[in-house]
Amino acid sequence: MSASPSALGDVTPQRMTFSQPLPLQSGAQLPSYELVYETYGTLNAARSNAVLVCHALNASHHAAGSYAGDAKSLGWWDNLIGPGKPLDTRRFFVVCINNPGSCFGSTGPMSIDPSTGQPWGSRFPVVTVEDWVDAQARLLDRLGIERLAAVIGGSLGGMQALSWTLRYPDRVAHCAAIATAPCLSAQNIAFNEVARRAIITDPDFHGGDFYAHGVVPRQGLAVARMIGHITYLSDDAMAAKFGRALRNGALGYGFGVDFEIESYLRYQGDKFSGYFDANSYLLITRALDYFDPARATGGDLAAALAPARARFLLVSFTTDWRFSPQRSREIVQALISNRRAVTYAEIDAPQGHDAFLMDHPQYHGVVRAWFDRIAQELAA
Amino acid sequence: MSASPSALGDVTPQRMTFSQPLPLQSGAQLPSYELVYETYGTLNAARSNAVLVCHALNASHHAAGSYAGDAKSLGWWDNLIGPGKPLDTRRFFVVCINNPGSCFGSTGPMSIDPSTGQPWGSRFPVVTVEDWVDAQARLLDRLGIERLAAVIGGSLGGMQALSWTLRYPDRVAHCAAIATAPCLSAQNIAFNEVARRAIITDPDFHGGDFYAHGVVPRQGLAVARMIGHITYLSDDAMAAKFGRALRNGALGYGFGVDFEIESYLRYQGDKFSGYFDANSYLLITRALDYFDPARATGGDLAAALAPARARFLLVSFTTDWRFSPQRSREIVQALISNRRAVTYAEIDAPQGHDAFLMDHPQYHGVVRAWFDRIAQELAA
Repeated sequence: MSASPSALGDVTPQRMTFSQPLPLQSGAQLPSYELVYETYGTLNAARSNAVLVCHALNASHHAAGSYAGDAKSLGWWDNLIGPGKPLDTRRFFVVCINNPGSCFGSTGPMSIDPSTGQPWGSRFPVVTVEDWVDAQARLLDRLGIERLAAVIGGSLGGMQALSWTLRYPDRVAHCAAIATAPCLSAQNIAFNEVARRAIITDPDFHGGDFYAHGVVPRQGLAVARMIGHITYLSDDAMAAKFGRALRNGALGYGFGVDFEIESYLRYQGDKFSGYFDANSYLLITRALDYFDPARATGGDLAAALAPARARFLLVSFTTDWRFSPQRSREIVQALISNRRAVTYAEIDAPQGHDAFLMDHPQYHGVVRAWFDRIAQELAA
Repeated sequence: MSASPSALGDVTPQRMTFSQPLPLQSGAQLPSYELVYETYGTLNAARSNAVLVCHALNASHHAAGSYAGDAKSLGWWDNLIGPGKPLDTRRFFVVCINNPGSCFGSTGPMSIDPSTGQPWGSRFPVVTVEDWVDAQARLLDRLGIERLAAVIGGSLGGMQALSWTLRYPDRVAHCAAIATAPCLSAQNIAFNEVARRAIITDPDFHGGDFYAHGVVPRQGLAVARMIGHITYLSDDAMAAKFGRALRNGALGYGFGVDFEIESYLRYQGDKFSGYFDANSYLLITRALDYFDPARATGGDLAAALAPARARFLLVSFTTDWRFSPQRSREIVQALISNRRAVTYAEIDAPQGHDAFLMDHPQYHGVVRAWFDRIAQELAA
């Protein structure tokens, strides 16, 4: 028996089937579907200590812990969640759900469309942040969780956390939205669009029905991931980590790998294209594009956030140029103008957008203090 | 006869053949080759008023004026070059040369390799900024221009201008390097690498020999251009020009064009892939990657720039995140530490990297004043 590097230890995903269709923002609906999720810690007798963790583009329900026999299977937020961690599983019952449309076990484009007996592929309906929040709420219903002590997420997960406070204001006591934005900027959408074009124009994409052809649009997915990676890292972090270092000490005068940064990006692209579903990448980037609570209020974010009743924590990172601190400040301002309680921390971190996944002392200290206070309130 | 919108009027490209091979930095050589170029204004009797304009990635020898019968054929820097313009063709004899490896008439991958009778394609040698400067110097030799009154360029053109002062310090009196950098950052290289991967992995690329297959890797080129465009525009400029505006007023819940920014990028990508050569894109981005005069001095830029004798003008733009003002300041500092004369202007412009192509009053005012002083010195 090998020691797990996770404080939480081994965990096991669970699966729940929903036979009632999920109405979607598009007007379509998702017929019977399954959600995969994990829970950590114990729901207390009052059912008041549940914390929902929302995942971002590339992540899954596997937020913390490890899988038995696989030391490399640490959850994506294992440094934040666990016994004695900032989100302490000795105090909280943590739930993380793989969103429908993703590719880690919940119903998505690779699943069988019951009406055709074939994989959904390109016919999987476009889902939104709001649709995911609705799906998550149904799962919590089934777990008997009426009200969340908190919802927390980073990046796209932060958008879901924010959306929870608007769609289910009475079901969320606290909301932590980290490294996120009230909507994508034109530049954000532009990067998503280029990534999608790379996937869609890969001949192995076959209009989204590549499963039937026994191929995967690996090249397009790799390019999409490379683009993503550039936006996740800060210019400074790339300079510090790679700079202009050469892979083999000399220029090759060709188009192979000369620079370390090229090697890194190719590796990341190849790895990603080996496990991520191309249709899911399209769907999830589209959900990012579409998220914009202020669309319904003519661009007035304060009006859009008026329904929120939660107490908020917003965290941004100085070198994050994907969702810059300014985007978090927009949310903070809109919440303050609604007289909401908001804690805002702008963390000086060099890693860019990826900082939200890092074990940064100041950042984790803020999150720890915030959850400590929630735990004290629960105990009072 | 239609009035030309160019102050300079109609111009005609010229062509020069070189039978002596060009030795390249790689150790290879370019056998007999042709260069296409344009000249504006008149070389004075002392042959002292020549200004070399160096072009960037996507541009050509057609820097100013128009082509007869085509009102849309304005040169890429027509707002800067012409009679009465900042670079005044009544005073200066302006030369702009299409670099070898490009695709606008000078010898490049689409040209016939004399040793095979087939297009060079992927076998065209990798060329560098230094190689281009050498090729330009030979052409000036043939025009009887021993010493340039000035060399000027923006972006990759600025790198060539800088390189001129190092390879031919006695042949350059003044150097204007605009919106440029002493070398690419890791992030800059990363964007180039993703663009190249998009091209190379397009099945229609055929290892660079797509000419023989009667196809063009249009999808890869389009993605490459879309990535480029994002880096040319500032986040602010994109927000102001496109924001989250919808093309058809409502979300489409699919992967077609929903947002104006998507429409713009697709248009730019499609247009570019219709006229730019894929192999040239690879070659020119590689020349960008490789430019790094401080490589030979262990990263010491001041030591690398020590050979320069010219008087310098450096211009950067506040919202340029491709080659930020900080990169120009690195050059300024290195020149100052060498006791060179340097004028540096940091222009407050919203357009990002593209600002160097714009008719911005403060920017053009600086360039005009700088050339006025050179003209006065010539006349003295």
